[in-house]
Amino acid sequence: MKLETLVGERFKERPSDCHIDSHAFMQRGGYIKYVAGGIYSSFTPMLRVTQKIERILREEMDAIGGQEVLFPVVMPASLWEESGRYESVGNELMRITDRNDSPYLLGMTHEEAAVHLVREYGQTYVKYPFMIYQIQTKFRDEARPRGGLIRAREFTMKDAYSFHTSQEDLERYYEKCLEAYQKICKRVGLPDVVIVASDSGMMGGAVSHEFMLLTQVGEDSIAVCSGCGYRANVEAAESIIKNVPGHTQEITLQHTPDVGTIEDVCKFLNLPAQASCKAVIYQRADNGKTVVLFIRGDIEVNETKLVNHLGCEIRPAVLSENSGLSAGFIGPYNLEDGFTVLFDRSLQGINSLCCGANKKDYHYTGFNIERDCKEVEYGDFAKIFDGGICPECNQSTIEVLRGIELFNIFQLGTKYTKAMNMQYVDKDGNSQYPVMGCYGIGVGRLAASVCEVKRDDYGPIWPISIAPWQVHICCVRADDEEVKACADNLYSKLTEHGVEVIYDDRIVSAGVMFSDADLLGVPVRVIVSPRNIKENCCEIVTRDKTISRKTALDGAEREITEMINQMLSGSIQSS
Amino acid sequence: MKLETLVGERFKERPSDCHIDSHAFMQRGGYIKYVAGGIYSSFTPMLRVTQKIERILREEMDAIGGQEVLFPVVMPASLWEESGRYESVGNELMRITDRNDSPYLLGMTHEEAAVHLVREYGQTYVKYPFMIYQIQTKFRDEARPRGGLIRAREFTMKDAYSFHTSQEDLERYYEKCLEAYQKICKRVGLPDVVIVASDSGMMGGAVSHEFMLLTQVGEDSIAVCSGCGYRANVEAAESIIKNVPGHTQEITLQHTPDVGTIEDVCKFLNLPAQASCKAVIYQRADNGKTVVLFIRGDIEVNETKLVNHLGCEIRPAVLSENSGLSAGFIGPYNLEDGFTVLFDRSLQGINSLCCGANKKDYHYTGFNIERDCKEVEYGDFAKIFDGGICPECNQSTIEVLRGIELFNIFQLGTKYTKAMNMQYVDKDGNSQYPVMGCYGIGVGRLAASVCEVKRDDYGPIWPISIAPWQVHICCVRADDEEVKACADNLYSKLTEHGVEVIYDDRIVSAGVMFSDADLLGVPVRVIVSPRNIKENCCEIVTRDKTISRKTALDGAEREITEMINQMLSGSIQSS
Repeated sequence: MKLETLVGERFKERPSDCHIDSHAFMQRGGYIKYVAGGIYSSFTPMLRVTQKIERILREEMDAIGGQEVLFPVVMPASLWEESGRYESVGNELMRITDRNDSPYLLGMTHEEAAVHLVREYGQTYVKYPFMIYQIQTKFRDEARPRGGLIRAREFTMKDAYSFHTSQEDLERYYEKCLEAYQKICKRVGLPDVVIVASDSGMMGGAVSHEFMLLTQVGEDSIAVCSGCGYRANVEAAESIIKNVPGHTQEITLQHTPDVGTIEDVCKFLNLPAQASCKAVIYQRADNGKTVVLFIRGDIEVNETKLVNHLGCEIRPAVLSENSGLSAGFIGPYNLEDGFTVLFDRSLQGINSLCCGANKKDYHYTGFNIERDCKEVEYGDFAKIFDGGICPECNQSTIEVLRGIELFNIFQLGTKYTKAMNMQYVDKDGNSQYPVMGCYGIGVGRLAASVCEVKRDDYGPIWPISIAPWQVHICCVRADDEEVKACADNLYSKLTEHGVEVIYDDRIVSAGVMFSDADLLGVPVRVIVSPRNIKENCCEIVTRDKTISRKTALDGAEREITEMINQMLSGSIQSS
Repeated sequence: MKLETLVGERFKERPSDCHIDSHAFMQRGGYIKYVAGGIYSSFTPMLRVTQKIERILREEMDAIGGQEVLFPVVMPASLWEESGRYESVGNELMRITDRNDSPYLLGMTHEEAAVHLVREYGQTYVKYPFMIYQIQTKFRDEARPRGGLIRAREFTMKDAYSFHTSQEDLERYYEKCLEAYQKICKRVGLPDVVIVASDSGMMGGAVSHEFMLLTQVGEDSIAVCSGCGYRANVEAAESIIKNVPGHTQEITLQHTPDVGTIEDVCKFLNLPAQASCKAVIYQRADNGKTVVLFIRGDIEVNETKLVNHLGCEIRPAVLSENSGLSAGFIGPYNLEDGFTVLFDRSLQGINSLCCGANKKDYHYTGFNIERDCKEVEYGDFAKIFDGGICPECNQSTIEVLRGIELFNIFQLGTKYTKAMNMQYVDKDGNSQYPVMGCYGIGVGRLAASVCEVKRDDYGPIWPISIAPWQVHICCVRADDEEVKACADNLYSKLTEHGVEVIYDDRIVSAGVMFSDADLLGVPVRVIVSPRNIKENCCEIVTRDKTISRKTALDGAEREITEMINQMLSGSIQSS
C-alpha cells in the first residue's frame, strides 16, 4: 500500500507519558493511540504485526494438537462463583451488571469458561488428553497500567487449556507446550528468553513458569544464580538467610526519641541493621484485621508470599490511635493480643536483636526471640536479594535482574475441575477429576517486547516474521518523472511477486522519508533516487544496517524477493 | 483433523430453547454452547466458519481501500459523552465502573472511537477520503436475545467507518460499499439478499440501508411493493392512507358502558374501525411526561417513528387515577391540557369519527377533527401494512415479509464529527467537518443466517467458501484393516494436496457417522467402505445431494481436489 494513504501519524517528539522506548515508538510510529489508562486503539501497522504474531501462535498451538475455540468476553458471575474466584479475585476483575441487574464480569482469564465448554464432552477417559485455545480480548483492571502494551488493561491474549487424566500426562504435555513456547519466541525474534519458576497467584496450582525477557525496563525481578543456573521470579524465589548467632544479652529498654525508621534506630543505637527486628504492618483485605510481620531490619518483605500464606489480599495498614500499635515502635516483646503475628525466617538464630518496645520513643536491645517469646513459628516472607543465597546450590551467588514477563504457564491440577464438578469415567469405571494446565501469551505485550529489544535510536527493527510489511520503497524525488516511473514499476512488480510492500512516493524530503521508514521498521528498504537511476540501479538497505548494497534496476524485484525469502527462512540473519 | 479428537458433542435431540433450525443445528452439531442469555462459547467448527467469513470481509474491505484497525471493547464514558450518546442510548449500552469508580462502557458500535482515532490524522483535505474498519467483539445488552447467534448480546462484528469531504463523495463511497456488501453476500452463499431503506435509529444520519435475508424466522418486517419494487424496513416505511371523507354528522355523546377497546366500541356502535379514532398512550423515557397519540382505529403505531419524532425513548404509559386520562375513553375532543398530543395522518380527511369522550363509559360519534379541534398538525406515526399503499408508486401493492437484518449501513453526515469537533482545513483554508458513513456486519449472525437458509432436515449445507472443512471422509467399518488403510491413505493424500479434511475413522455405525457428517455440513463427503473397496473405488457425495458418484480409489485424491477447486471457483454450483 501507499504510505501516503496510511491512516495514522508519525512524529518526532517523544510523548511525555512514554517511559520506555517501545511505547514511545509505538505512539510516534502511528501504531497505537491512547484512549484511556491502559486502553489503546491500534492503527493498521500494529494490526499487521499482531496478526502475524497470531498466525504464528495458531500454527504452534495447532502443531501440539490445540483446537481453536472462542469464549465470551462477558461472562455471568455464576460461572466464576462455581470456582470461587468471583469472590477471591480482587478488583482487577471488572464486575458489571446487565439491564436486569444480573451480575457479570469481564474475562481476564478463562479457566471457568474452558471447563464449562468441555464439561459434557470430557465425560470419558477416551477423550483425553485434549487442548483448546482461543485468541480473544481480555480486560484486567490493573492498578498501574504502564509501558503502553507492556502492561495494558485491555489486551489480546492467546490462552490455552489442556485436560488430562493424570499429573504425569499433564507434565508431559506441559513440556511440549514449553517447547512450543520456545519456538514461538524464536519465530517472533526473541531467542534469548529465560524460563523461570513463578508464583501461581490467583490461578492456583503448584507448578508454574514464566518466560522472561531480560531488559532493564522490565517490571518484574528475576533471581538468577550465576553458579548453578537457578532462575525464579523474585516473587516465587525462596529466601535463605544464614545468621551468625552472636552473644546473648539482657533485654534492655532504650529511650529512642524521635527515631521512627529502623535505619534511624540502628544508627542511634550504633547497631547493624542485621541485628534489628523490623515490624511491617498490613491489613487483610477480607476482614480488615491487622497483620504484624517481623523481619530482619535489612530485608524486604515479599508480599506475594504473605498473600499466599494468608489466603487473601493485603493492604498497608493505617494505624489509628486506639489500634494498640505504636507506629515506629512496634516489637514482638509484650505486644498486645488480637493481631496476626508472623515471624520471617531471617530473624531465626539471632541472639541479640533491637526491636520496638510497643511504647512511643522506646526500643529494646538484647531481645532474643527464642528466650523472650514463646512458640514462635518462622515462615518465609522475605524477598530474595542481589548477593543472596541460592536456594538450589546454597551459595551467595544470586543476581537480581529485571525482565518483562512474556508468557505464563501453569499446572493447575484439579483446582477448577473439582470446584466445577467436571468428571470423567476412567478405564475401570470410576469417576475422576481431570487435571488441567493453562498457557497464556499476551499478543500486544509480545509485540511491544520485540520492539523493546529490537530497535535503534530511530525506531523498531521488526524481525521479518512479524514486520508490518516486508519491503519499504522510498521514492526520493517523486516529482522526478523518471524516478517515479521506476519506483512505480518496482512497486507493482514486487506486489505481483507477493511481497508485502509499503510504498512511499510522497513529495517530501529524503530526511522525512527515512525517519518515517525508521519508525515503521520494515526489514528491507529499497531506495529509488535520481542518483541511483543514473547508475541504472536502486539501493537495498536492511533496517538493521547489516546489508547495504546497490543492485541493477533490471531484475531488482527478483533479487529483493529472493532476499525476503532467505530472511523468512532464516538463511539471512538480518534483524 | 480426525473427528474422533474434535472437541464438542453432536447429538440428536433438538434443544428445547431453540426456536429456529439454525440455532438447533449449531447446538446439535457442536458449534456453539450456551453460556448465558445471548452469550455463547464457540467450538472449533464454528471458529472455522467465522474465520473464513472474516477473511472474506477483510478481502472485500481491503478491495475498497479499507484499512484494518482495532478499537477497544472497553471505552471511557467521556468518549461517548462527547457525542451525547452516553446519555441518549438506552440500557442496551452496558455501563461499567473501574476500580477508581471511573465510568466506562462496553462498545456496541464505534463511531466515537473511530473519530477519536483519526481526529488528528484527518486535519487536512488531502487525507480524504479514507475508510477504517475493525473486526472485534461487541456487546449489546439486548432485552430479548434470540435465535442463538441471530440476535446475541455478545457478538463479533466487522464495523467500518468512512470519512469524506462532501456528501457527494460519501454517496459515491456508500455505493461502492453497497456493492462490496453484495459481493460478500454472494461469496458466503447468500445471493438472494434484499436491500431495504431503514431507520437510522440511535446512529443518526439521514440515509441508511439494511441487507435483509427474507425468511419466515426473521424478526424484522419488510414492506415490499410487488408493483414498483419499493423496499423498506417496516420501521422506516412511510405510511400512506387514503380516506373517503363520508358525510359530516353532529358530534353526539354516546353511552358505551364497559367497552374499552376500539374493536368493542366499533362493534357496539356498529361502525367500521376505519371510522374510529384510537388513542395510544406513552410515557417519555426522559421526563416521564405523557404522550397521547391519536390514530385510525384499524392501524398500528410505528413506535420507531414516534421515538424519532420525540427525540427520546418511550414506554407504554401506566395511567393513574389523577392522570386526567380515562383509560379506554380518551379522545381528542375536550381533552385536558398538559399532554403532548399527536395526530397520525391516517385520521386526515375523515368527516365523521367515533372517539373517546374523556369520561368513563362514554364516546362521541360524528366527531370531525377539522371542525371540532383547532390547529391540528398530522404526522406519520403509522405502521405500513399488508395490502397498504406503496409510498413510491401509490398503488395498494405493499406486501409485508419477514427477514433477518444481515447488515446495516448508514450515511451519518456530520453528526459525530461536529459533536466531537473533528475538523479539517479545506482547499481554501476553511475549517470543515468531515462527513461520515458507517458499515456493519455481524459475523456470527451472518454464519447463522447462512445456516438458516442453506440446510435440510439433518443439518447445515455449508457453501464451500465458509464450510468448516472441504471434505469429510467417512471410513465405514474402520475395524476392517483394508478399509482403514485405504481411508488413511486418502486422508493423508488429500491433506498433502492442501485440502481441508475432517476424517471420521471411529468404529461406529454408518448411521452415526452420516448423521454426524450431516450436522457438520461439509460440502463433499467421501465414503470408504468394504463394499466400495471391493469395487476398488470410493463414493463421492455432495452434502446437498446434487452429486453422488463412485470414483476409482487410484487417483481419487486428484479428482476430489479438482472438484473442490471447481466448487471454490464457482464452476460447480454445489451447496
